[in-house]
Amino acid sequence: MVASYGLDELRKNHDIELDGLAAKIEDRDPELVGLQFPDGIRDYGPAIADAIEEQTGIDCVISGDPSFGACDLALQLEHIGVDLLVHFGHSPMPSIDGIDAFDVIFVPTYSKAPVEPVVRKAAQHLEGKTVGLLTTAQHAQRLDDVCEALEDEGVDPLVGYGDNRVINPGQLLGCNFTAARTIAEQSDAFLYIGSGDFHPIAAAWGLKELPLYVADPMTSEVRQVNDRIEELMKQRHAAIANAKEADEIGILVGTRVGQQRVKYAKGLVTLCERKGFEAHLIAMDYFSPEALKSFRHMGAFVNTACPRITTDDYARYDAPMITPQELEIVVGKRSWEDYIFDEFKGTKPAPHEHEDAVELEHDVVGEDP
Amino acid sequence: MVASYGLDELRKNHDIELDGLAAKIEDRDPELVGLQFPDGIRDYGPAIADAIEEQTGIDCVISGDPSFGACDLALQLEHIGVDLLVHFGHSPMPSIDGIDAFDVIFVPTYSKAPVEPVVRKAAQHLEGKTVGLLTTAQHAQRLDDVCEALEDEGVDPLVGYGDNRVINPGQLLGCNFTAARTIAEQSDAFLYIGSGDFHPIAAAWGLKELPLYVADPMTSEVRQVNDRIEELMKQRHAAIANAKEADEIGILVGTRVGQQRVKYAKGLVTLCERKGFEAHLIAMDYFSPEALKSFRHMGAFVNTACPRITTDDYARYDAPMITPQELEIVVGKRSWEDYIFDEFKGTKPAPHEHEDAVELEHDVVGEDP
Repeated sequence: MVASYGLDELRKNHDIELDGLAAKIEDRDPELVGLQFPDGIRDYGPAIADAIEEQTGIDCVISGDPSFGACDLALQLEHIGVDLLVHFGHSPMPSIDGIDAFDVIFVPTYSKAPVEPVVRKAAQHLEGKTVGLLTTAQHAQRLDDVCEALEDEGVDPLVGYGDNRVINPGQLLGCNFTAARTIAEQSDAFLYIGSGDFHPIAAAWGLKELPLYVADPMTSEVRQVNDRIEELMKQRHAAIANAKEADEIGILVGTRVGQQRVKYAKGLVTLCERKGFEAHLIAMDYFSPEALKSFRHMGAFVNTACPRITTDDYARYDAPMITPQELEIVVGKRSWEDYIFDEFKGTKPAPHEHEDAVELEHDVVGEDP
Repeated sequence: MVASYGLDELRKNHDIELDGLAAKIEDRDPELVGLQFPDGIRDYGPAIADAIEEQTGIDCVISGDPSFGACDLALQLEHIGVDLLVHFGHSPMPSIDGIDAFDVIFVPTYSKAPVEPVVRKAAQHLEGKTVGLLTTAQHAQRLDDVCEALEDEGVDPLVGYGDNRVINPGQLLGCNFTAARTIAEQSDAFLYIGSGDFHPIAAAWGLKELPLYVADPMTSEVRQVNDRIEELMKQRHAAIANAKEADEIGILVGTRVGQQRVKYAKGLVTLCERKGFEAHLIAMDYFSPEALKSFRHMGAFVNTACPRITTDDYARYDAPMITPQELEIVVGKRSWEDYIFDEFKGTKPAPHEHEDAVELEHDVVGEDP
């Protein structure tokens, strides 16, 4: 077999700043460089490692474990002597502190897909409206192009800052839609630029009063995602009903650096016990139904780590898995009418001038941090 | 559902020192105690956590991730504030250093299964011979009983010390049979006391000239395991032949505390490159075929972490996975006739008087450390 994942192929579809990277790495003078990639780019890991090793003479090790976001930095590489981590494809999460293990360099990896055609197509649904723009780190540097195309089509674009879990204007995570909430009152609808349902569903779920359109630059498809929320809410209703039957509840705590809510989890143990449920703290690195088999006598799990494990992987687990807010419904502390998505919030407003953030010419709405 | 895994049930089958544990924990005055269990005992985790919390008033969190041995301490619990880890079911591995993350208390968990009946049964195959005894931490405290029963049946038992990857006399790991090698020359055969093939296969493979009998105290079964080695060797032969076809080779490094051989792995990259293969370091926490899918253009993997992933899970992986010694055969540095098992050795002889080691009345053979 021949290595088929070269840098030329990577550069066809991605804007990735590899040129300055070697110098940045040399500045830090590391012993061993760890490289961490999301699924879509990991294929090019060996070629990137080769380029870095050739330019710097410093050894690289590629993390083979899954990487789901900047919340999931490969701290375990510290144990094999990595003193500098280069994390590709996600933007930094300033709300995470305590990453003392090593230096982290974030290398944004932008899609080269042109956004104008699909955004003009989406504009047909949005004419005359004020539309909040949302996207992921992958398309963040295209938001000015999106604004121009929309204005040209008679749509008034609006971009908001999130909290300090995200750094780019308009940026959405699977667990955080503060960049949407900031501008919800001024918007008639939202337009998400990107692929898949994973990211826009968080915002559509959190702000269900507003229509949310997806414009996918990869497939040129335009569609609404709001109708998926009803189906998800039915699932959540069933999970809550089933969890009420539990005698013993496992409170799951994630050990990944940006998914840890151990104090919150301890509070939930107390809440359960006060309401007559037995409860235990269970720590998990990699969530799987197999790992929870040892706790099969528990009637329900409350997951305080990534909320998307709860909502998206629900059907994979034998026992009902619910969010902390859903537990409040189970124990009667919150009503079903006050249902909220388990958003993973930052600690304060986003740092507007973060060195790694994309700069937009278009105005951005948001609290001054 | 009702919690069905109580301490009474645990104590029916296991000798576990929970009485002194609370005092030991209080002495260390931790903020949050992590509890780590192997699969078979994790069921009782909540009951053990309850007992500790009741006696000490200190919160416990149970690790839900798999625990394969003392090589696999849950260091990631450090990130959620755990400052004391209580590790059940495995004995300490003195060769591991650099566990600065937190204190670790090892709680041996011995099987209560009587060994005498099955050992007397095994003695029928062994009469008149000098027999090396092997077991796991689970049955370590029964070796004196084993010796007595064997002597009674006209067998001369022999127990050896391993290196400092194991602390108990006669102790076998899935990756380490130094306690067998120490006494191989004086022995006519080996007798392993324990369940399953996982542990005895390592010794049978490493010392194939001697017959190895298994006496299983749980099932009362006596059998030989040597005939499985031929089948495994055929598999290894095929893996080596397939790996020779590779252009690019991934050198896998484990990040778990007792499975790290990063210097060794770097040396293997150099070896590959000198022999005309392209090679890359890949770090893995949890090994799975899915995780290696991103490296599907690689023609082979060399695994420097737990050797049993290579030999036992071989069929699960798409590309051939081989051991470092098998790579030497691939590149022509070692002959097939000099095939050796990838034993994970300690750094020096075992510390005979380790505070956590089982003490035998019977003589133990071994180098003075």
